Amino acid sequence: MRWSKTLLCTLREDPKDAEIVSHKLMMRAGLLVKLEGGLYSYSPLGVRVLHKVEKIVREEMDRAGASEVLFTALQPISLWEESGRAGLMGKSMFRLKDRNENTMVLGPTHEEVATDYLRTLASSYRQLPATIYQIQTKFRDEIRPRFGLMRCKEFVMKDAYSFDIDSDGADESYRKMYDAYLRIFARCGLDAHPVEADTGAIGGNHSHEFMVLAPSGEDGILHCPSCHYAANQERAERKAPPCDWSSPSAAPRAKVATPGAHTVDEAAAALGIASDQVVKSLVYVADGKPVMVLMRGNADLCEPKLRRVLGAAELEMADPETTAKVAGPFGSIGPIGASIPVFADNALREARDMAVGAGEDGYHVAHCNLMDDPDVKIEAWHDLASVVAGDLCPRCGAPLALERGIEVGHVFKLGTKYTKAMGFTVLASNSQPVTPIMGCYGIGVSRTVQAIAEQNNDADGIVWPASVSPYQVALLSLDSKSESCAGAVAQLEEALENAGIDVLVDDRDERPGIKFKDADLIGCTVRVTVGAKSLAKGGAEVRLRKTGETELVPVSQVCEKVKALLAAN
Amino acid sequence: MRWSKTLLCTLREDPKDAEIVSHKLMMRAGLLVKLEGGLYSYSPLGVRVLHKVEKIVREEMDRAGASEVLFTALQPISLWEESGRAGLMGKSMFRLKDRNENTMVLGPTHEEVATDYLRTLASSYRQLPATIYQIQTKFRDEIRPRFGLMRCKEFVMKDAYSFDIDSDGADESYRKMYDAYLRIFARCGLDAHPVEADTGAIGGNHSHEFMVLAPSGEDGILHCPSCHYAANQERAERKAPPCDWSSPSAAPRAKVATPGAHTVDEAAAALGIASDQVVKSLVYVADGKPVMVLMRGNADLCEPKLRRVLGAAELEMADPETTAKVAGPFGSIGPIGASIPVFADNALREARDMAVGAGEDGYHVAHCNLMDDPDVKIEAWHDLASVVAGDLCPRCGAPLALERGIEVGHVFKLGTKYTKAMGFTVLASNSQPVTPIMGCYGIGVSRTVQAIAEQNNDADGIVWPASVSPYQVALLSLDSKSESCAGAVAQLEEALENAGIDVLVDDRDERPGIKFKDADLIGCTVRVTVGAKSLAKGGAEVRLRKTGETELVPVSQVCEKVKALLAAN
Repeated sequence: MRWSKTLLCTLREDPKDAEIVSHKLMMRAGLLVKLEGGLYSYSPLGVRVLHKVEKIVREEMDRAGASEVLFTALQPISLWEESGRAGLMGKSMFRLKDRNENTMVLGPTHEEVATDYLRTLASSYRQLPATIYQIQTKFRDEIRPRFGLMRCKEFVMKDAYSFDIDSDGADESYRKMYDAYLRIFARCGLDAHPVEADTGAIGGNHSHEFMVLAPSGEDGILHCPSCHYAANQERAERKAPPCDWSSPSAAPRAKVATPGAHTVDEAAAALGIASDQVVKSLVYVADGKPVMVLMRGNADLCEPKLRRVLGAAELEMADPETTAKVAGPFGSIGPIGASIPVFADNALREARDMAVGAGEDGYHVAHCNLMDDPDVKIEAWHDLASVVAGDLCPRCGAPLALERGIEVGHVFKLGTKYTKAMGFTVLASNSQPVTPIMGCYGIGVSRTVQAIAEQNNDADGIVWPASVSPYQVALLSLDSKSESCAGAVAQLEEALENAGIDVLVDDRDERPGIKFKDADLIGCTVRVTVGAKSLAKGGAEVRLRKTGETELVPVSQVCEKVKALLAAN
Repeated sequence: MRWSKTLLCTLREDPKDAEIVSHKLMMRAGLLVKLEGGLYSYSPLGVRVLHKVEKIVREEMDRAGASEVLFTALQPISLWEESGRAGLMGKSMFRLKDRNENTMVLGPTHEEVATDYLRTLASSYRQLPATIYQIQTKFRDEIRPRFGLMRCKEFVMKDAYSFDIDSDGADESYRKMYDAYLRIFARCGLDAHPVEADTGAIGGNHSHEFMVLAPSGEDGILHCPSCHYAANQERAERKAPPCDWSSPSAAPRAKVATPGAHTVDEAAAALGIASDQVVKSLVYVADGKPVMVLMRGNADLCEPKLRRVLGAAELEMADPETTAKVAGPFGSIGPIGASIPVFADNALREARDMAVGAGEDGYHVAHCNLMDDPDVKIEAWHDLASVVAGDLCPRCGAPLALERGIEVGHVFKLGTKYTKAMGFTVLASNSQPVTPIMGCYGIGVSRTVQAIAEQNNDADGIVWPASVSPYQVALLSLDSKSESCAGAVAQLEEALENAGIDVLVDDRDERPGIKFKDADLIGCTVRVTVGAKSLAKGGAEVRLRKTGETELVPVSQVCEKVKALLAAN
């Protein structure tokens, strides 16, 4: 492809709304063009990377035995009502009415459609196992679209769905996808790690996310350098922190005036105790019902854990009015005589001699033993704390490290959540109906494109791995007006393309400096430069974008040299 | 691919709602699975055909110098307001509100987005000409979705947009796309004809549709067997039919009682004249304003022609109340003293001694000479008649034939309609701003898939051309339990796949009759059958689906034989 024949435009400046490096570089290199917030057009360069990633995904899905289908983005809301998710998706799911006033949704995911597809076609155990997948456009009405393709309103996903008649089969299907994901991300040149994850609105009982480590990532990942335990912060567990409650004060429970003390630290100061001797009491509303949550003063609640424990579709902190009505004023909430269910973090299990809010502004209750106090009723104890760096690994007890990651894939064991709700059964070998066990498996294809750029760049631009480089070679023609130079460029272009290597020829009438800068910015894996100077020295300059290593190679040997570089990078 | 590993399901019965043969066969062969009216899922077989057509489209677009981009389906309504089309699309465009109550549309087409893309990137004439294209999902809220992929709510299109700085360049861009379309449809094995067409809501001044001739087609096409003029019925012209007005009656204009005569034929009978001496007067409302249209009694108005003449976004026949208010009661409308603009068909130009409605129930006016009558004011004369079979070719005068066709492609010369409305200019070589001239070019990719099936089938099923066959070869294993048979099948599968030929191996535990029936129904170009019998006779049976010609070929020579058949079909 000749640069002059295509509409490639690079930018000198970072776009104002681009916060992370990959977003800046994707825009500056002209891979994306903004339509409006959260909506991006792919330029000819962007489409090429997208298609290369799609091809890798497709090959590995096929290799894992999955069959490609294609569903519609439009879905009738009735399917979501059948599965019980219609109310669960909230405003993040685009809804619209057709001309007959029927409500449709723009699919953010396709569990319902996939289950409906299978129940239309499959009636016998002999048709299973089956794993289907599609590469398709998804829609999500993001509260705050940002970071380019990382969090936008319309994006390309690969979503796969497996159906098995027994649990062993379902585990096997899950494993095949898990392994395929490792291969896919490796082939894309990504350093991606599977971590245990929360299942969120998709549901099911077990899931792994594939995380690309990057400081800009929106997800926190706890991992253990010792035993390699790794989990999303929303899911991560910890060994409860050690605490010495062996010699509690024998003082009886006592209401103490703590005027003006509303935070844990203020209460601790007013009472002259450590902040982890104060119980943090919080009121949440879960699917319309208020609950109280108790945490140690120095720990934060991990909301996804609470949501999971309660099985709640919607969960939010109660507003001051609701809180005051059911548990006293903000800053003085406490569990003594509480009229709503109380859940407590495991770390409070042995806690004695604690201070709690008195349910009355300006007062706390000191010397409270949560487990024994007849006026404190704990509904259940759970692991509810946000795990942070330095907390102890739940498996081996070593201190955990915290990193940031970008979720590029997610695999779920769904069990029979959808197949049961939607009444999909097949006849087993004993002629009895059995409800298939399902798994679902997503890859954010467009997000993966940008994650590659996020992980592979330097001060000059993107550094594409050969497998997904928009063109594998940028061929710079420095003296197009010289016949020998133009001839060498044409000869090289033909030789490379005949060898199955895609080439972007920079044939613009621009200064060499601009061509070098743009080549670095766009980041094709190999750069080949042909000019009067290089020809005089005996050939073309072949340069690996990643290392900058440059070699003068006779024109006739450039193709072999490039092949070797591409195979290794 | 092994049948047993994929979820292929054929149907014995035609689906109840399938009216045309391709819809029936696509469903029965298991290429499509219905989600609900107007929404279809592509099965693994369907996806394969879709991708093969997409690949042909992509290769020919690239060859024609177009660059692939990818836009979003979601578009802000503001772009449509800029172009002036927001009101024009009516209910066929899906609209929705995002969480911030902004109105978005689901793109039925992308002229606005493409123009916006170009104005973001291009500022100089040196960046033009540019033709961009995408293969993408489009949405249309059809009044009556039907015929499977022919008229559905969500479909795959290739849409391209060209931008030139002068008219010659625009013509050249148009010609390149026109030629590419001819190649694309030929490569898809389609007999498709370019015909002159109406520009409809897309606008512009010149367009061609590419029509696949088929009795089930929704479009009427007039074509001249003599000079090869061809046009959509919405656009077709005709030589005005000869009529002898050389000796008109000299009788003066006279109001005549015609009690109960409301139709042209009733009025002609009441007056004792031929029906083509009666003027048919119609009242339409164009963008809210009523107009009267005069046709010869034996001709029908072609509404798209009237819409084009008036430049109207919305056009519909006036209801009885409106008609009565502005032009008298239905059945007695007439142009004498009309208070609204009157447009007349060219065929009435020389008409004399005509009968017209008197604007009063039960009366007509006889002996009216439209051109001379001081009480009849004709705003303009136009070709407004629906052309029918037997009308005369506007070019050579030979009688026209009428056929039915399926529109699979449409190319438009748009002029500056969008670039001007959206304020897109580039600097010309003289440093003056110039408004680029645009063309747009669509192919219904999913519709093309089904059109191929509509044109290529027989009583047993689909007959796919080799270029788009879901698998090029169906390899039937008749005696899978026999080791020699299974071995020969495996050997053939490997040999064919190594030769780059895709193969569907029917390894099901089914009777031969069922396998033959399914192979015919699905319609892969070549069928290879291996059984104990064929092996005993010395090889495998190789059969061309199209002709049924069958040959016994030694296993070692099957691959060469298949290659030859595929190359020729």
